[in-house]
Amino acid sequence: MSEPAPPTPPAAPVRRLIGDLVVPVTAPPIPGGAIDIAADGRIAAVGDPAALGPAPAAVERLGGMLLPGLVNAHAHTPMTLVRSVGDGLPLERWLREGVWPREGRMTHDDARCGMVLGAAEMLLSGVTTTSEMYLHEDAVADAISETGMRAVIAAGIIAALAPDGKLDGRLAQVDAFHAARHRPEARISVAYGPHSTYDLDGPMLAQVAEHAAANQALVHTHVEETLAEREAVLARSGGRTAVQALQDAGMLEGRLLVAHGVWLTDEDLATLGQAGAGMAHCPVSNLKLASGIARVTAARAAGVTVGIGTDGPASNDSLDLWEEVKLAPLLARGTAADASAMAAADALALATVEGARAIGLDDVGHLTPGAWADVVRIDLDQPATGLALDPVAHVVFGGGGRHVTDVWVAGARVVQDRSCTTVDVPAAVAEGRTRAARLGG
Amino acid sequence: MSEPAPPTPPAAPVRRLIGDLVVPVTAPPIPGGAIDIAADGRIAAVGDPAALGPAPAAVERLGGMLLPGLVNAHAHTPMTLVRSVGDGLPLERWLREGVWPREGRMTHDDARCGMVLGAAEMLLSGVTTTSEMYLHEDAVADAISETGMRAVIAAGIIAALAPDGKLDGRLAQVDAFHAARHRPEARISVAYGPHSTYDLDGPMLAQVAEHAAANQALVHTHVEETLAEREAVLARSGGRTAVQALQDAGMLEGRLLVAHGVWLTDEDLATLGQAGAGMAHCPVSNLKLASGIARVTAARAAGVTVGIGTDGPASNDSLDLWEEVKLAPLLARGTAADASAMAAADALALATVEGARAIGLDDVGHLTPGAWADVVRIDLDQPATGLALDPVAHVVFGGGGRHVTDVWVAGARVVQDRSCTTVDVPAAVAEGRTRAARLGG
Repeated sequence: MSEPAPPTPPAAPVRRLIGDLVVPVTAPPIPGGAIDIAADGRIAAVGDPAALGPAPAAVERLGGMLLPGLVNAHAHTPMTLVRSVGDGLPLERWLREGVWPREGRMTHDDARCGMVLGAAEMLLSGVTTTSEMYLHEDAVADAISETGMRAVIAAGIIAALAPDGKLDGRLAQVDAFHAARHRPEARISVAYGPHSTYDLDGPMLAQVAEHAAANQALVHTHVEETLAEREAVLARSGGRTAVQALQDAGMLEGRLLVAHGVWLTDEDLATLGQAGAGMAHCPVSNLKLASGIARVTAARAAGVTVGIGTDGPASNDSLDLWEEVKLAPLLARGTAADASAMAAADALALATVEGARAIGLDDVGHLTPGAWADVVRIDLDQPATGLALDPVAHVVFGGGGRHVTDVWVAGARVVQDRSCTTVDVPAAVAEGRTRAARLGG
Repeated sequence: MSEPAPPTPPAAPVRRLIGDLVVPVTAPPIPGGAIDIAADGRIAAVGDPAALGPAPAAVERLGGMLLPGLVNAHAHTPMTLVRSVGDGLPLERWLREGVWPREGRMTHDDARCGMVLGAAEMLLSGVTTTSEMYLHEDAVADAISETGMRAVIAAGIIAALAPDGKLDGRLAQVDAFHAARHRPEARISVAYGPHSTYDLDGPMLAQVAEHAAANQALVHTHVEETLAEREAVLARSGGRTAVQALQDAGMLEGRLLVAHGVWLTDEDLATLGQAGAGMAHCPVSNLKLASGIARVTAARAAGVTVGIGTDGPASNDSLDLWEEVKLAPLLARGTAADASAMAAADALALATVEGARAIGLDDVGHLTPGAWADVVRIDLDQPATGLALDPVAHVVFGGGGRHVTDVWVAGARVVQDRSCTTVDVPAAVAEGRTRAARLGG
């Protein structure tokens, strides 16, 4: 994995975090390593403390493993308010009977509350960045601001909801949302979220591509989650696959993230790889809804940048991405009948540096000068984590979310000793219960 | 799931635990339910407090979800000392280069320390019973006594280690171990652990079956973990499968637990089902080592009693069985392309009442008068657990090990507020590090 160029020259450090082991992801682990953080929340330096410059005034000897915060590449987090509804129903009935009636009653404040709860859950398990796709994008942005998390927020664009089959009104809203809230320095990037190639037709996709290109924004869309979806697109577009439909619409000329990609062919993957597109692998959701298993090893070999995602909490039902960090290599190995099919280090890269690139962020997901100081501490003194012969394999397969004790986003501590400092959890849970009950809980 | 008959008449309660929701597993969840516990550590009564008799002197209003402790149906827990060694190597090289040299140097005290660490890890995640297979069975038993956990301990019997190819000496040891340590009332049951049908030949298997039958003990053995193993047994035993070899040896007349069973045919499963045998499904280990995916739905349909297991921590690398509780239905659904292939309630049953029966314990894994008071409390006030539209689906897919706060075994509290009361964790971790380093860590 090559190290991305720092986007800005590193500034002088104001704070130093020292762990038992620092795992930069893009470089080998550093025993006793330190992370120096500048006043702007970016990393100033990483390395052995003896080899770094003079220590800044504030030094915290934290112990444990320090690694980059994880990146959830595909989520619909406000669905925390409908979590576990209709479990076991087939996809169509699950949507029609369980999810959509409740989502239809959801207000801005419901979505904000659901997003706050999900952000707290993610932060507590060490996920510092999320790539969201939802309506109520303002509510999602408000919750991200409030919780101190980082997000790429794709405003959902759904043809089935468009008045007179025209997207103009909705695209004007999304353009305005981009103008108002796209502030990467304040932890929010805005993307365009056309639902899918089975929902939007070719001219609609081209229209979205134009608007996204005008803002140099990421497009985040669902592609071939199910076989039925693949077949519907082929039938509708005269034998063109979803990826070819995106290509026809000009989507591959900008930055593109496809969610799921379970049924993509080698040719589709080659097209995405050549275009530098990203793919969000959602293994738990794809198994739970019986959609299939995406061919991650083939996708990466074709040059696709692969991240991993939880999908919405109603189709998972957890937002603890460490489950996917473990499941991605398990499925890669099990389906290939080859225990070396995906290394632990690759699994960690999917959840950090590679996932960040897939969602359009180059300065997230690695501990490198110039990158954001999004850092997670894992307790290495527990029975489950105390004996790590291979620390990266151990954190991927044996440790994970339940051993996260502290989390920083842009240098700000948002989880301290297993408590979220930015969310009043009892109040948020109580509010969420009331709102979920009103939605039909 | 029918309710097993209580093995002993319930005694008068001395203590009552009250939760927000009590999940007996063999009966519907009880909002605000109570569990009355007798002085002998068994359950006296379960139900709505208003419908139970007068409250005993000690009443604890705990809130949260109270459910039976989980049952790990197949583990080699002292391997905590070699965890994460050789990740990514193919099975044969992993054993020869990573595991066996270290295990060969393992002493009684090493195994005891490794088992204590693993027991603490399991208790902290709500696993109260484990079905172990290992050499150093005395060390395993000592650790179980010390930590307050419950176990069925299969003393390993390995033909490749037998002097002159005779098992007599080892079987005498195992008989003596059974006589000395088989004390179900003190949380330890003893089983016979012949390694596998590829290690032991037909006469050896028959000899083990005789010794086990003399003690009415469970036999716990590996069966068809890999395709190579299936083919080796077929070649060696003149076309008889592993299950047929066990049948030929008389193993199916006693209580039998087969671990893995990845490659069993419909005929093998029918044979096991008719014999009332149990199977330990180990989905994480089977994927990690690229062995395959066991056909759990087919096994249960054939009448096999299926539990779930972590396998050893070196092939997982976690002992948090909640990962398997979620993965079992995910794989059943994903491989069947049917989201209703395994209900959440069934997944919970595999990890509790069904798993307990599979390892020979009828009074464990359900909250029923006469059963052991092995109880787990899950915090329902966290962002991840606070909004449970379907509490059983939610705990299977969205909650799990990281939200366990308190655990009781036979009515004794072994985890209190996320701390293990029976193990000095810092001391055990420090000791484990020293021992692991000596083994070649």
